[in-house]
Amino acid sequence: MQAVLELHGLSDVEELIQNSIHSDVKALSDIPRYLLTLGGKRIRPILALLVGRCFGMQRPSAALLNIAAGIELIHMATLLHDDIIDKSALRRHQESAYAKFGLGSTLLAGDFLFVRAFGLCSRLDSSVISWTERACVMLTEGEILEDGAIQEKSVEDVVEIAKRKTSALFALAAQCASHIAGAGADSVEHARHFGEQLGIAFQLVDDILDVRATEDILGKPAGGDLRERKPSLINVLWLKSGDSIAHELLVPNGKAITDESIKVGLSTVREHVVVDEAKRLALSYVDGARASLAAAIRSSKVKIDDSGAAALSALVQFVTERDW
Amino acid sequence: MQAVLELHGLSDVEELIQNSIHSDVKALSDIPRYLLTLGGKRIRPILALLVGRCFGMQRPSAALLNIAAGIELIHMATLLHDDIIDKSALRRHQESAYAKFGLGSTLLAGDFLFVRAFGLCSRLDSSVISWTERACVMLTEGEILEDGAIQEKSVEDVVEIAKRKTSALFALAAQCASHIAGAGADSVEHARHFGEQLGIAFQLVDDILDVRATEDILGKPAGGDLRERKPSLINVLWLKSGDSIAHELLVPNGKAITDESIKVGLSTVREHVVVDEAKRLALSYVDGARASLAAAIRSSKVKIDDSGAAALSALVQFVTERDW
Repeated sequence: MQAVLELHGLSDVEELIQNSIHSDVKALSDIPRYLLTLGGKRIRPILALLVGRCFGMQRPSAALLNIAAGIELIHMATLLHDDIIDKSALRRHQESAYAKFGLGSTLLAGDFLFVRAFGLCSRLDSSVISWTERACVMLTEGEILEDGAIQEKSVEDVVEIAKRKTSALFALAAQCASHIAGAGADSVEHARHFGEQLGIAFQLVDDILDVRATEDILGKPAGGDLRERKPSLINVLWLKSGDSIAHELLVPNGKAITDESIKVGLSTVREHVVVDEAKRLALSYVDGARASLAAAIRSSKVKIDDSGAAALSALVQFVTERDW
Repeated sequence: MQAVLELHGLSDVEELIQNSIHSDVKALSDIPRYLLTLGGKRIRPILALLVGRCFGMQRPSAALLNIAAGIELIHMATLLHDDIIDKSALRRHQESAYAKFGLGSTLLAGDFLFVRAFGLCSRLDSSVISWTERACVMLTEGEILEDGAIQEKSVEDVVEIAKRKTSALFALAAQCASHIAGAGADSVEHARHFGEQLGIAFQLVDDILDVRATEDILGKPAGGDLRERKPSLINVLWLKSGDSIAHELLVPNGKAITDESIKVGLSTVREHVVVDEAKRLALSYVDGARASLAAAIRSSKVKIDDSGAAALSALVQFVTERDW
């Protein structure tokens, strides 16, 4: 991903983010700043900048930089709020903001980031604003849909949750960037669909990594989705397979989940046939993303930048090339 | 307040709010709808509509209705998040949304309302958008400033918290409404100041009511600020007076606050001289609000509607006429 790191505009996006998180009330700046020190792939702004470049925007416009930064701020806000909701103590190997700064300040810092994001996005045209509103609503809807008994969740539910919770911002990034670059309505709709499929693939791969990757790669202990009985793709497929260990571990029975049972569960599911099934599904969304990207390029009203298109293709590849 | 209830536009504002809280994910609609059933004075939209009317907008424009509804949605979002932060079980005599629906859903419903509010406000001009962003940042800052040891808080701190936490939306309502009605920059700035002073007065009166009013009027047991050791005007003044009961009750000493100690504290502070001191301070902000309103009217570029100005004056009076 070295090429991507040298992407034009990424340092401008970082600067916009840094400027946006300033407040004269220390905690409001400290918490987002702490979250930034934990690192992060910046995949959403990178996606926005690469889509812009693919559609001929070699140098990103101010509007493109604003939406790229705004989307990352929204993502950061949801990370803060998600850690509260999930009571997560760790994020990327370190204390979560929630664990470090407490519930109240972390909740308010999330609100602050939402507000700052809207401050950036609201300078843009009305299409961008209403798409951003819709994407943010989808994010909150996706979080709510995660609730409820895991034994009643289907694979369709898993995909629907991923679509709202994760891919809403991927879709928004691709949609806004192609729109700002002047790709035209048909192409923008294909680009949106590209981002959506890519985001779903990204989430499903994450679900697989949660049981396949090491703590070192994940930044938190493996099996987190098992421990929280989340409706992840692996958990839902494993439970549906009828495996008795899955049933014992995932269906709430009033007993606490022990570290030992997570260990047994992990070593079982890691080599289970459902992992291959999950990979096939994730790859089908990668294929879908590639097809939509091709359609967006075909229907573009502006000249395509070939190196930008190639970089986008590399980004799609990157999603599937993590250690799963 | 009967006249106010017949205010042109208030039913349109209610309709905008109802439409904004629709989501196909049930919990997201259910929680704001539940909050609406708990009632509420709608003082912020009423303020916006009355300021508009004062500056000649007999029939509120779509922009004025949008900002009036948007401000109420922002207020509703902060109520949901505040109940989480304060772990409040009750709101207006009934279970709080937090107690009824749990932390996760209530937090997300608050986010959802913020997003919807920005959806409404972002249709307006860039001044309104940046004022709204600023006001929302102030709200979160005010909440954070409330934290910290009460014995280190001054009366200036109390006023600063009220200014950010409560009066930010009052100021925003008056500022946006006068701007939309075309009052001109000087008048708009006076109107903003009017809203700010009125909001501070409103909060200080609330702080007094917390110890002076009955549970019946408050919708929750009296003395809530005592129990939570909040930096309310009464608590800070009482502690500064050197009263030993105040010290015993308000300075954290590792012991839980008992119902009995609240009862003793309430009966003591209720008749304490600090109540008069608090009233004088609150009334000074009412006077400030009246002076700023007069200045806004004097400097207006549009013809003043006398009945609107009179209704605004009645609203100011209403703030001070609650049972304190």
